[in-house]
Amino acid sequence: MASLPPAIDSLITELSKLPSIGRKSAQRLAFHLMRVDEEQVLQLSDAIRALRERLRLCRICGNVTEGEECEICRDPRRDRTSICVVEQPIDVLQIEASDVHRGLYHVLHGTLSPLRGITADDLKIAELEERLDTDPPPSEVILALNPSVDGDVTATYLAQRIEERGISVTRLGTGVPVGGSLEYTDAVTLRRAFEGRRKI
Amino acid sequence: MASLPPAIDSLITELSKLPSIGRKSAQRLAFHLMRVDEEQVLQLSDAIRALRERLRLCRICGNVTEGEECEICRDPRRDRTSICVVEQPIDVLQIEASDVHRGLYHVLHGTLSPLRGITADDLKIAELEERLDTDPPPSEVILALNPSVDGDVTATYLAQRIEERGISVTRLGTGVPVGGSLEYTDAVTLRRAFEGRRKI
Repeated sequence: MASLPPAIDSLITELSKLPSIGRKSAQRLAFHLMRVDEEQVLQLSDAIRALRERLRLCRICGNVTEGEECEICRDPRRDRTSICVVEQPIDVLQIEASDVHRGLYHVLHGTLSPLRGITADDLKIAELEERLDTDPPPSEVILALNPSVDGDVTATYLAQRIEERGISVTRLGTGVPVGGSLEYTDAVTLRRAFEGRRKI
Repeated sequence: MASLPPAIDSLITELSKLPSIGRKSAQRLAFHLMRVDEEQVLQLSDAIRALRERLRLCRICGNVTEGEECEICRDPRRDRTSICVVEQPIDVLQIEASDVHRGLYHVLHGTLSPLRGITADDLKIAELEERLDTDPPPSEVILALNPSVDGDVTATYLAQRIEERGISVTRLGTGVPVGGSLEYTDAVTLRRAFEGRRKI
């Protein structure tokens, strides 16, 4: 069996490292890039490089930005008394798209994970506590962490530190997603949905 | 709603142009690239650029190569009397992986398509005919074109030109794929499978 030229083989290898792109999809993408306009290919290559050269983390909240502070932290119309804590910058994007939060954010860049050896020092938790200790402090922290084991551990850890400062702390409701069906809902989600039941 | 920094927004736009990558997958990929080692990101960027800088088409068969002629055309152990005609370089990869063809290839880089205005001049058909007119000519041409309307048109067109030179021409069998089930086989495929039935 003939082998592939190194130029395409190493691109396939690099593409395969991306999440949810297997070897077969990587092959299709690589051969696709052989066929399209050279300009499009160079734009993609440059955009990938520019991402790391130009993007950095907001010094206040840890969200992605090209300046010192992100657009949200700089926006005077945002409610500075409310901070929504998320795991990753992509979660900010998701919440902004839903238009449900008018306050600020704080991006932890992960969750505590005893199993994977990730401690508070590996996350932007000290930076969060610094924000809680400003004068005046925020009046509310919303924990928008994923409903996973590590998300739960992190929420419990943070809730204690936030409450002891007398700041209100809540966590996003867990339950059956809108449009989802009970038939395909797992037992843990169902139990949470029952615990979180509300008067109608 | 806050907008994304241009560096990540334009990467998402470029990634969305790739086949089978929607805006949501592009977002996930872009934010993933924010998180991984800088080295891996630069390797991906460089690999994309190198693809177009180093890869070219074999001057004999149109397959991808980094030299003048591809590895298969240069290989003295390949059977030079048999040429397998395919639509795209990725088809060569697929056939090589199956280890069913010991001859050479010819890559058309597309199919004839009256609807999309693609004629013989847009494909590497003149190059194929040149190879059929060598002395001695190949003894067999296998048309491994996709079983689609355009593939059929192209196969009919080529078969005529190959046969009039007294060279044997065949096309890959069409039918129910191994492991497939009749229940999920469309009517056209089933008809072809019946037409192509063989004594057991």
